[in-house]
Amino acid sequence: MDDRYYMNVAIDLAGKAAGQTSPNPVVGSVVVKDGEIVGFGAHLKAGEAHAEVHAIRMAGEKVIGSTVYVTLEPCSHHGRTPPCSDLLISSQVKRVVIASVDPNPLVAGSGIKKLKSAGIIVDVGVCEAEALALNDVFFHYIKTKKPYVTLKTASSLDGKTATYTKDSKWITGEEARMDVHRYRHRHDAILVGVGTVIADDPSLTTRLPNGGKNPVRIILDTHLRTPIDARVLTDEEAPTWIITGARADEKKIEALINQQVKVMKLPTEEIKIDNLLTLLGDRGITSLFVEGGATVNGSFLEAGAINQVITYIAPKLIGGALAPTMIGGSGFRSMGVSMNLTIKDITMIGQDIKIISVPL
Amino acid sequence: MDDRYYMNVAIDLAGKAAGQTSPNPVVGSVVVKDGEIVGFGAHLKAGEAHAEVHAIRMAGEKVIGSTVYVTLEPCSHHGRTPPCSDLLISSQVKRVVIASVDPNPLVAGSGIKKLKSAGIIVDVGVCEAEALALNDVFFHYIKTKKPYVTLKTASSLDGKTATYTKDSKWITGEEARMDVHRYRHRHDAILVGVGTVIADDPSLTTRLPNGGKNPVRIILDTHLRTPIDARVLTDEEAPTWIITGARADEKKIEALINQQVKVMKLPTEEIKIDNLLTLLGDRGITSLFVEGGATVNGSFLEAGAINQVITYIAPKLIGGALAPTMIGGSGFRSMGVSMNLTIKDITMIGQDIKIISVPL
Repeated sequence: MDDRYYMNVAIDLAGKAAGQTSPNPVVGSVVVKDGEIVGFGAHLKAGEAHAEVHAIRMAGEKVIGSTVYVTLEPCSHHGRTPPCSDLLISSQVKRVVIASVDPNPLVAGSGIKKLKSAGIIVDVGVCEAEALALNDVFFHYIKTKKPYVTLKTASSLDGKTATYTKDSKWITGEEARMDVHRYRHRHDAILVGVGTVIADDPSLTTRLPNGGKNPVRIILDTHLRTPIDARVLTDEEAPTWIITGARADEKKIEALINQQVKVMKLPTEEIKIDNLLTLLGDRGITSLFVEGGATVNGSFLEAGAINQVITYIAPKLIGGALAPTMIGGSGFRSMGVSMNLTIKDITMIGQDIKIISVPL
Repeated sequence: MDDRYYMNVAIDLAGKAAGQTSPNPVVGSVVVKDGEIVGFGAHLKAGEAHAEVHAIRMAGEKVIGSTVYVTLEPCSHHGRTPPCSDLLISSQVKRVVIASVDPNPLVAGSGIKKLKSAGIIVDVGVCEAEALALNDVFFHYIKTKKPYVTLKTASSLDGKTATYTKDSKWITGEEARMDVHRYRHRHDAILVGVGTVIADDPSLTTRLPNGGKNPVRIILDTHLRTPIDARVLTDEEAPTWIITGARADEKKIEALINQQVKVMKLPTEEIKIDNLLTLLGDRGITSLFVEGGATVNGSFLEAGAINQVITYIAPKLIGGALAPTMIGGSGFRSMGVSMNLTIKDITMIGQDIKIISVPL
């Protein structure tokens, strides 16, 4: 077995904790001694042990003289837990193999430096692309201090999200809808416009067979039109944040606030996506799942604020010049300035097609 | 090698003549003697030799005592060529393996019967589904006397066919556009609405590196608005048929007719797709490639007249509540009555996604 093999095991382990480590990245680690895996671990939750700690603990005394594989550079600073580089040194490991350097300015190479000066052999860059992909969200947040935005859309093959009468139950099949709940589980927050709340009264929770983490529910509501009896205000399943404009009526705000509901005013009268993302980033939201209607999706498109697009396409034709589509707003004026994406993955999910794409 | 192997060779050969045998089906044939292929052939053009004739000719004397594989039941009637079943009998073949029975009422089992009564061993149904798929168009035409309709659409990932300013050059990449020309080559006729002629003045010809067959160009033009200097009227590259309503002005009709242009009146004031398809079927059009705008596509959808959908999806987001989409018209009222398809194939073509689907 070579370095790539063991690093892939570590990447695989890291992936198991996807969606539950925010605002930390997912990290996996494997300890190898005399050609056998003697310990492994993953970071499972912010504030708790890092991947290397779990792996070294599992290895016990065998850690001495071992090779430790880790998907992200070990930390060198005292955060909520002691630095992992110190632990690796005191554990007398022989070699550390790292997939990617930590983009966090608090680490950024200092962990590697510390290990090297303690005489440990350090190799960096094994399966780097795969490891980076694991933490798209984390790295985006570290660099921009704004959430990574995933736009989710579901349409018929002819690009409609509902019939002209607004019937949309259901475009896609059960498997695709279940997949959406897996994304909700993995996101810090979910966002819709007040139009969706008025039309569908959704709960916006994660409904999976074995439960799941509910994202914070974010409602864009410039004029505070959210009905006082809406599920997102009353069900107490998850926090709800209503984002409104600078001129929102203070009395209305008072009426909305309760144990689970916060109302946040943006500095401008109309909601600007860029201001919104700054606000959410400041509040620790690292990933945002946008399930908006055409207007909300259009605002994100026009703001250039989309980091990933998940598209479910159902093998149906709906037709209708007035039937709604995925992205409204005014849209781009010419093909030359439209937003170019690159397809990362196409799969069948039940009877539907799932396309994952990212901006070029 | 087993029967499926040789039949797949025959299917492969048949496919080589796709688009050039209309109004006949594509058919392939392989002659096998002592475990070796001793002859093969395909039907290349209506009025010319059938697949078995070419294959038996290539086999020469080795045909005696051989097994002949053929993708479609050999004919038993005198058409433009003598019956193939007679040739197989006089060639003293030992066994004939047939993929599918001929749905043509003039044949329909009688070829098989003739072979059997001459003492030839006949096996039917080897690779039947694959062989049937080869002649979707032919079988549809034989059964309905109307052309097989393929709807072609090209859109952005968000279902738009152009920006709100109607800019659509280009949604898809060069490879996808080249693929469209391969479909034009394989179709008897191509259809657009007069709106497309007025907006784009297209030539609607087949433009492939090594040439290609031009389809008959069909323009739906209820009120005879086709400009007199439109390319489809003047370029003499291919026949153009203008389909109009019962009340079309006779003087306008006179002005449009020339060597390449015919004007055909339908019995009703508005164009009804069902009447159109009957007219085209009567004129020998077995396959129709619809490259319409949203309105024309909507008419075909509402008439239930779509047999196949070819969708090219470009990894782009265009946005815009007013940007045009693939299928307009009024569309279906509810999800329950929308048109359900089944996905037959998804592939990448250049940077774009190509989806082939057929009604359930």
